[in-house]
Amino acid sequence: MKIEVLETTLRDGVQAEGINLSYDDKRALIALFDNLAFDFIEAGTPYGNPKDKQLLCGDTLPETKKSKLVAFGATRHKNNLTEEDLSLKTLAQSNTQYVSLVGKSSVTHIEKVLGVSRADNLMMIYDSIRYLVDRGKTVFFDAEHFFDGYKADADYALETLRTAKNAGAELLVLCDTNGASLPEEVFDVTKRVIRSFKKIKIGIHCHNDAGLAVANTMEAVRAGATHIQGTFLGFGERCGNCNLSTAIVNLQLKESYELVPNKSVREFTAAARHIAEITNIRLFKNIPYVGKSAFSHKGGMHSDGVLKYPPAFEHIDPGVVGNERRFLLSEVAGRAVFNKKIAEIMPDREFSQEDVAALLENLKLLEMQGYQFEGADASFKIFIEKSLGIFKPRFGLVDYTVSTSQPVAENPSTAHIGIKVGDLTREAEAFGNGPVDALDTALRSVLTAFYPEIEKITLTDYKVRVINSEEATKATVRVLITSAADGEVWTTVGVSTDVIDASFKALCDSVEFFLSTRKE
Amino acid sequence: MKIEVLETTLRDGVQAEGINLSYDDKRALIALFDNLAFDFIEAGTPYGNPKDKQLLCGDTLPETKKSKLVAFGATRHKNNLTEEDLSLKTLAQSNTQYVSLVGKSSVTHIEKVLGVSRADNLMMIYDSIRYLVDRGKTVFFDAEHFFDGYKADADYALETLRTAKNAGAELLVLCDTNGASLPEEVFDVTKRVIRSFKKIKIGIHCHNDAGLAVANTMEAVRAGATHIQGTFLGFGERCGNCNLSTAIVNLQLKESYELVPNKSVREFTAAARHIAEITNIRLFKNIPYVGKSAFSHKGGMHSDGVLKYPPAFEHIDPGVVGNERRFLLSEVAGRAVFNKKIAEIMPDREFSQEDVAALLENLKLLEMQGYQFEGADASFKIFIEKSLGIFKPRFGLVDYTVSTSQPVAENPSTAHIGIKVGDLTREAEAFGNGPVDALDTALRSVLTAFYPEIEKITLTDYKVRVINSEEATKATVRVLITSAADGEVWTTVGVSTDVIDASFKALCDSVEFFLSTRKE
Repeated sequence: MKIEVLETTLRDGVQAEGINLSYDDKRALIALFDNLAFDFIEAGTPYGNPKDKQLLCGDTLPETKKSKLVAFGATRHKNNLTEEDLSLKTLAQSNTQYVSLVGKSSVTHIEKVLGVSRADNLMMIYDSIRYLVDRGKTVFFDAEHFFDGYKADADYALETLRTAKNAGAELLVLCDTNGASLPEEVFDVTKRVIRSFKKIKIGIHCHNDAGLAVANTMEAVRAGATHIQGTFLGFGERCGNCNLSTAIVNLQLKESYELVPNKSVREFTAAARHIAEITNIRLFKNIPYVGKSAFSHKGGMHSDGVLKYPPAFEHIDPGVVGNERRFLLSEVAGRAVFNKKIAEIMPDREFSQEDVAALLENLKLLEMQGYQFEGADASFKIFIEKSLGIFKPRFGLVDYTVSTSQPVAENPSTAHIGIKVGDLTREAEAFGNGPVDALDTALRSVLTAFYPEIEKITLTDYKVRVINSEEATKATVRVLITSAADGEVWTTVGVSTDVIDASFKALCDSVEFFLSTRKE
Repeated sequence: MKIEVLETTLRDGVQAEGINLSYDDKRALIALFDNLAFDFIEAGTPYGNPKDKQLLCGDTLPETKKSKLVAFGATRHKNNLTEEDLSLKTLAQSNTQYVSLVGKSSVTHIEKVLGVSRADNLMMIYDSIRYLVDRGKTVFFDAEHFFDGYKADADYALETLRTAKNAGAELLVLCDTNGASLPEEVFDVTKRVIRSFKKIKIGIHCHNDAGLAVANTMEAVRAGATHIQGTFLGFGERCGNCNLSTAIVNLQLKESYELVPNKSVREFTAAARHIAEITNIRLFKNIPYVGKSAFSHKGGMHSDGVLKYPPAFEHIDPGVVGNERRFLLSEVAGRAVFNKKIAEIMPDREFSQEDVAALLENLKLLEMQGYQFEGADASFKIFIEKSLGIFKPRFGLVDYTVSTSQPVAENPSTAHIGIKVGDLTREAEAFGNGPVDALDTALRSVLTAFYPEIEKITLTDYKVRVINSEEATKATVRVLITSAADGEVWTTVGVSTDVIDASFKALCDSVEFFLSTRKE
């Protein structure tokens, strides 16, 4: 049985503390979720948020292959005429077919928060949905505080749903807005709603304040809901939304509903890491299915059991979600994973036992310094070559000095660099928009004389992560730089206590990698 | 109805990746859990782990007021005579009255992992428990893989329980060892066990591989289990064990079972932070009840609702678990939060409508530059004062120049700074572990002459976020610095295309904020 998925990281997820998405982050996430073939992506609140307005009401809507974008807003303000409500107008003007409209279902909230009569709230729901339906939109009604409202006054809560249905909503979403409900309550209430509302889809939207969002979502589906909402990694206000990466795998693999293609599920672990990068959030290791520790075995008995019989301590095959088994403190098993990785990166080379041992030894040293090659395959390739003694550097650093001053003169940052290519040494000086930019410009200006093709390289992404942030200004930083040329994209990494030095290492790797892919 | 709690951070929790406890850590945790009045603390595996042996079989057992310590081990090895099994001998010699003994309940595991006959496994269970009971121990039987075993062969799984009961076990613990089970399965199977086993306590031990450990634990209790096991923060192998801080509050506050005194619940948030300190684990912000974000409100509509009526978006009063409500400032926050926030930060000042309008206008400009005051209250206070024209700077920058070089000389980074305090200008030069560190050191060295109290400030956290990373090395960065002195902690923010400049702004705000809290 098909269950629809609505992903709301871009709308409800950004309510999480510490999550702030730029316009470009949002577009990158839309592409990622579309690639996973989620049915709907709730992409933002165009009224009141300029970035979301640009995204949803601008000249062009981001293109998607599988997913439909949804704009979010609330029912009209109590003092507004429907036609004059700016939020509704903005939604009507958005370029998406689909609109999620939140309205109140709980008498307590209507009286204590909204301050309108029960009848007026129903009018607000009806008018707002009608307005959008009349303008050709497909409307999802988010019944806020539905489960709490059902406890406070079940008849009224159901009446809000009936009103939304009569106004033309296509989907009624039961929201556990405070995350307060228990699984058996969610099952019972959803079941009653399903019985009362035929011929309209029922959805579920859970929050995790009691650690039950995934269980509650599953109970609603068991009761008959056919549409689930959440965020891929559980981002959301307070304790977050239903974690979709968990809920989808549970429903699809353990209960055999159909939510997304199995191919998408195999990309879940990679998607989780990519989202963590885009949002600059440290991925919680223990997160089910996609966490780094999800299939990690530490206890001797457990590792032993898994080696004899993988399902001994694994409830599913890690490959199904694109994750991998790890044995902690177990060199033999660590080696199998490592072997897989190096064969991927250098498919043409045979690695001897000694090669692998040397690589692992060097890798351990670099990891202790703070290196992390996940997502930085270009630097990993260079690392392998260096460890095997087969790296042929195209250039070498003689020295650089970078300085930056305040107050800002015309060019606040200056870099002076000396570079050796073969027997020739060349120097250059450059200014920049910050010291790293100055150094980048200086490096390119020297190298272009030797390798004119490097002008093609553009740097498309730059990320800084502080590793041991409790060391404050003495902390080690890891810089990731993504570069592009001729349609190819690669990422490199540098680590240092000096952010400029870390950046320089990543810049050098980027150029070396590019040159290594060229014909001699 | 009373439900017993067994805390197993010291035993199952240490199977988590990244958790390693010293002997002193273990003693500190025992004192902490005892203080929370948990019924049992599973304190370790004395056979095979020297630290645990010292703890449980040494001269003195750690003293506890409320909690009983439990030693953990497995049924005898298949090739050992019971009397000669060293693990059982060690358990018999431990100073605790209580022993948890794990044995296999699943035919699949007996055949594929253990490699003994079904009958032999029953003998191992019987002999081992009998041996310990004969030596005066109270034995808890952990039925490993019970739920998977029940699916594979229900009769046999029940037979292992019956054997344990007949051997004299006081408690039968149903373990979902792989964390694979779904709530309805746990409910049904537990219910059947409860029906078959009268006059013996039934316990539940869940893992979180499907994100359902809390829900499953609650379902088992609903089915009649009267003993739950887990770890306070959910630490444990792979995706962790049942999170007790969540499960206990759910069962006690939402279902009115009695697990611990309400006084303990009020200490849960403090306990969580203390455990994070002891285990050196970064506490996940979104963790239910005890996380920093658990009662944090960011969205305008939500904050507005909570201000009018706290239960609007809070399922319980944060004080009940010792946590607190927080309002976050951000572009999704509304005017009500802003008003509340400025009143919180400057409680003695009345803000006129014009003040607020001017502040919001300035805030918008800074946000466009990349500023974000979420979590940076100290900079926000300075921002308010600057916007209102009442900021009295304690010092001003004349100039600085920072330079960093490669290859590294003895001091790779140098900072020269000129600072004005009143009419006096002072200069200083300093070296550092990277340019930001050098600048920090130089700034402090100048300012200490004027304000010796700033020596108390330590920088405890440093974060760098690239805002528009697609601008690559020209990107704008936002730096967050957390400082501490005299038990107070504050966070400041700086934004620039130059990471050094951004850091410097955050450093200056930190010192200004600290000085502003001192008496003149």
